Amino acid sequence: MVSVKEFQEIMRRIYFNKDSKRGAEDTHKWLEDEVKELGEALQNNDIKAIENEFADVFAWLTSLANVLEIDLERATLRKYENRCPKCGSSPCECPFRKRRVK
Amino acid sequence: MVSVKEFQEIMRRIYFNKDSKRGAEDTHKWLEDEVKELGEALQNNDIKAIENEFADVFAWLTSLANVLEIDLERATLRKYENRCPKCGSSPCECPFRKRRVK
Repeated sequence: MVSVKEFQEIMRRIYFNKDSKRGAEDTHKWLEDEVKELGEALQNNDIKAIENEFADVFAWLTSLANVLEIDLERATLRKYENRCPKCGSSPCECPFRKRRVK
Repeated sequence: MVSVKEFQEIMRRIYFNKDSKRGAEDTHKWLEDEVKELGEALQNNDIKAIENEFADVFAWLTSLANVLEIDLERATLRKYENRCPKCGSSPCECPFRKRRVK
């Protein structure tokens, strides 16, 4: 088992030197590319590629958090600790929406 | 502290009913939108919005993993356990690249 915070620290040890040189904007672009690749793996229904891209998306998300000095675990638990932040329930009781409405 | 696996389980309890109804393709679209919103928050340099969007991206990533029955923690540690999967070192010794080259 690894905590979200520990995984972010692992990524810091491996990549912070490069991530900080690249900066937030380009690290975010890379994250976007990885999410796109995850979508392509989904389209191809390739389970090994899908698992691989999940790892990459999560790794780049923590890299970006490191560049910005954001504690991903704290930010996440603050919003999602055991209930939906919108309706306050678990399971969520908000109306079902298939697509995003802004 | 929360492990990656535990957080994925929390998301399952809160959202799996809706996530499974929505399906992988639309859940991935939602994840893409959240990554875009994180980029907008970065542009605006709004720290509260940035933290909020980090939480959302991670939440939607685990939602998508739940729909696909992927263990995000296992997939991630398999690829990134304590060293760069490309060069095998920590810190990573791969050549620095600012932008993605496919």
